[in-house]
Amino acid sequence: MGRRYDTVTLLTDYGLVDEFVGVMKSVLRDLAPHVAIVDLTHGITAYDVRGGALCLGRSVAYLPEGVVVAVVDPGVGTDRRAIAVEVADGAGVFVGPDNGLLAPAVALLGGAQRAVSLTNPDYRLDGDGGATFDGRDVFAPAAAHLCNGVDLLALGDEVDSSTLLPAAVPLPELTDGRLRGQVLWIDGFGNCQLNIGPDELDQIASGEDVVRLLVDGAASRTARRVTSFAELSQGAIGIVTDSYGMLALVLDRRSAADELGLAVADDVTLAAIDDGDGRDDGVRVELTSR
Amino acid sequence: MGRRYDTVTLLTDYGLVDEFVGVMKSVLRDLAPHVAIVDLTHGITAYDVRGGALCLGRSVAYLPEGVVVAVVDPGVGTDRRAIAVEVADGAGVFVGPDNGLLAPAVALLGGAQRAVSLTNPDYRLDGDGGATFDGRDVFAPAAAHLCNGVDLLALGDEVDSSTLLPAAVPLPELTDGRLRGQVLWIDGFGNCQLNIGPDELDQIASGEDVVRLLVDGAASRTARRVTSFAELSQGAIGIVTDSYGMLALVLDRRSAADELGLAVADDVTLAAIDDGDGRDDGVRVELTSR
Amino acid sequence: MGRRYDTVTLLTDYGLVDEFVGVMKSVLRDLAPHVAIVDLTHGITAYDVRGGALCLGRSVAYLPEGVVVAVVDPGVGTDRRAIAVEVADGAGVFVGPDNGLLAPAVALLGGAQRAVSLTNPDYRLDGDGGATFDGRDVFAPAAAHLCNGVDLLALGDEVDSSTLLPAAVPLPELTDGRLRGQVLWIDGFGNCQLNIGPDELDQIASGEDVVRLLVDGAASRTARRVTSFAELSQGAIGIVTDSYGMLALVLDRRSAADELGLAVADDVTLAAIDDGDGRDDGVRVELTSR
Repeated sequence: MGRRYDTVTLLTDYGLVDEFVGVMKSVLRDLAPHVAIVDLTHGITAYDVRGGALCLGRSVAYLPEGVVVAVVDPGVGTDRRAIAVEVADGAGVFVGPDNGLLAPAVALLGGAQRAVSLTNPDYRLDGDGGATFDGRDVFAPAAAHLCNGVDLLALGDEVDSSTLLPAAVPLPELTDGRLRGQVLWIDGFGNCQLNIGPDELDQIASGEDVVRLLVDGAASRTARRVTSFAELSQGAIGIVTDSYGMLALVLDRRSAADELGLAVADDVTLAAIDDGDGRDDGVRVELTSR
Repeated sequence: MGRRYDTVTLLTDYGLVDEFVGVMKSVLRDLAPHVAIVDLTHGITAYDVRGGALCLGRSVAYLPEGVVVAVVDPGVGTDRRAIAVEVADGAGVFVGPDNGLLAPAVALLGGAQRAVSLTNPDYRLDGDGGATFDGRDVFAPAAAHLCNGVDLLALGDEVDSSTLLPAAVPLPELTDGRLRGQVLWIDGFGNCQLNIGPDELDQIASGEDVVRLLVDGAASRTARRVTSFAELSQGAIGIVTDSYGMLALVLDRRSAADELGLAVADDVTLAAIDDGDGRDDGVRVELTSR
Repeated sequence: MGRRYDTVTLLTDYGLVDEFVGVMKSVLRDLAPHVAIVDLTHGITAYDVRGGALCLGRSVAYLPEGVVVAVVDPGVGTDRRAIAVEVADGAGVFVGPDNGLLAPAVALLGGAQRAVSLTNPDYRLDGDGGATFDGRDVFAPAAAHLCNGVDLLALGDEVDSSTLLPAAVPLPELTDGRLRGQVLWIDGFGNCQLNIGPDELDQIASGEDVVRLLVDGAASRTARRVTSFAELSQGAIGIVTDSYGMLALVLDRRSAADELGLAVADDVTLAAIDDGDGRDDGVRVELTSR
């Protein structure tokens, strides 16, 4: 027997309109009634493996010990592997498809220590239906059995963790004093998280409390570096260090994505500007149209 | 005292924007704090009793033992009965309006064994408000008291289960080698579940691995019988045995409902086709416009 | 040590698409694993402090004992206070921003008995990120520590409860036999709750079972006073005492908000009408266009 767990955290692109998530929870409740379930989110855009991987990566530092089931799985039913990956000396196990979804979270926790392909039929549900709902038939049962103390290696064939599909997280580029990045995530308030951290911005713009931000091209704009939304006057663009420590383009009580016409994965370039007083106290943002 | 339960599964058309579901859960937590709650879904289309009944029917094989509260209830406040129905030698009790919502699930579990109308005021909440929120005032309290061991018959007047409102689930018709069915359900990915099983399709088309599917009339189409979405080339229509064992019209990473212009309850006809090589290896689908 | 709690109820405007709520729950699960979480709603309109305050006020009579965390917080990161407010001899503690969000609920439970500003860094999470996610960094940790028995006064500086920001709930006005109120809430079914109770309506219209309701101006209408939606013929406007004891404008299986073009905070005037038979048996509603 392996370690037992009492929390299963879920992330999917199933949404909450259909009963998919409810059926997964029913399976968990049926097989491992002692387990508490935490819904991280079920609102990942359908099929958006990258978005799901980034979300899991943002959250992983806050997750309780236990099993994490993540399902964004356009390849369900094909020969893509279904995997369970142990991290942090067994403090956590990630369960999901081997399509890069789990990779950033696993890496942030120090990398995979043991991994299996979930091939053992004894730990799957085997119904009359087709193979289109592995959340119910493969991933939830695996999580439940792990919580009940079944050892990871009993769930299927051990996998060399170096063969797990990695995730490609884009890095910003600094060229000629311009910092070219992209939009990683737009949250429900329209805040646009970039793949650029505050230290990187400081390399091209002085760390002054008040900076300017220009969005040029079709939508050239200035903006201020702030620490809270409410510091911004109405309609003004701000750049804030968000709660995950990354830079985000924001407005006060309005959507920066709408204001700037930004979508996930759009390019954004930050550049220091000279405002004429001889001091380099601003930042210019270029939005590359899609 | 009756049997005690420790799980309450919820299905409603309340949505998750308003606090209706949260208030039901608060009542359950207040009256029966030992109970774990499983949200099957709260995304049933408003007033769609048939859609709720089908959802509950699809899910019932996976539900844990306990009480199921289902509320899609356009007749709330009228003299329609509020009922609790015991099934499977007491392994489960379904609680909700007597409007057909519970009927398929109850039937799939072998039928009602005991049933009551929830008329006993001792087991209702009696607030200052009107009679428009039986989820809070009638159904959640009944579920909580059942979980606490109150016998079913204490909740109200016993009801002859033959008088419970049945559900009308449409059956496909096979005529002249054509299989006429309808769309039962469109999930959030746009997959269109039919009321036709794979065995019925095999009656009119050989069970070959690769079949063709035609959508004729305004939108005549061919399609392939596949086992996973990813087998389909971009834009191609597929027919898959879904996770509930029914046929579904699907695309790879796109909405079949959008592609085919289908809505729930639309008619769909499957017909074998002769592709000219003398072998009957295809299926033709006719969509009857609404 | 203070009293321990085992339930945390959550209300936010975070929505369920992003992982914000899931991360709050992860923090709670990590710090106070014995706690059960009740989601009241996460569907408050973004930044709508008034809507959140009304929702919490509607629900408060049904909430279980324990801690309530409410977050609708456009001022996050500014010097607005983060507070915890004890009510009902410690049966409940409300945690959230001091912006009026908690005020109606606290008032309905008899008012604040003790209150603190959540300034003690020992009971906050202190990550690398900016100060834009107090739900995760301030409010969830405070709730978890309260559940673990930490005394309210240990969480920060005691606050004079008379200095807490109150909520402004509009009262209806009765002038010349006309009752002028406004739409407090439109639920997902389109039912429009008014800030007018049935007793107030009885002051201007007799309490007859069948009354008429006129919507005049651009959308002058008649309507009937009913106790259930299904009493209304198709398309007819009804006025019902809703489940919270307030009057609501409703239709049967349709949205009254859509039919009447109403939005939250719109003015509505009720006036008795004389239908020509000499009896005052009707009510006229005037909708003031926005």
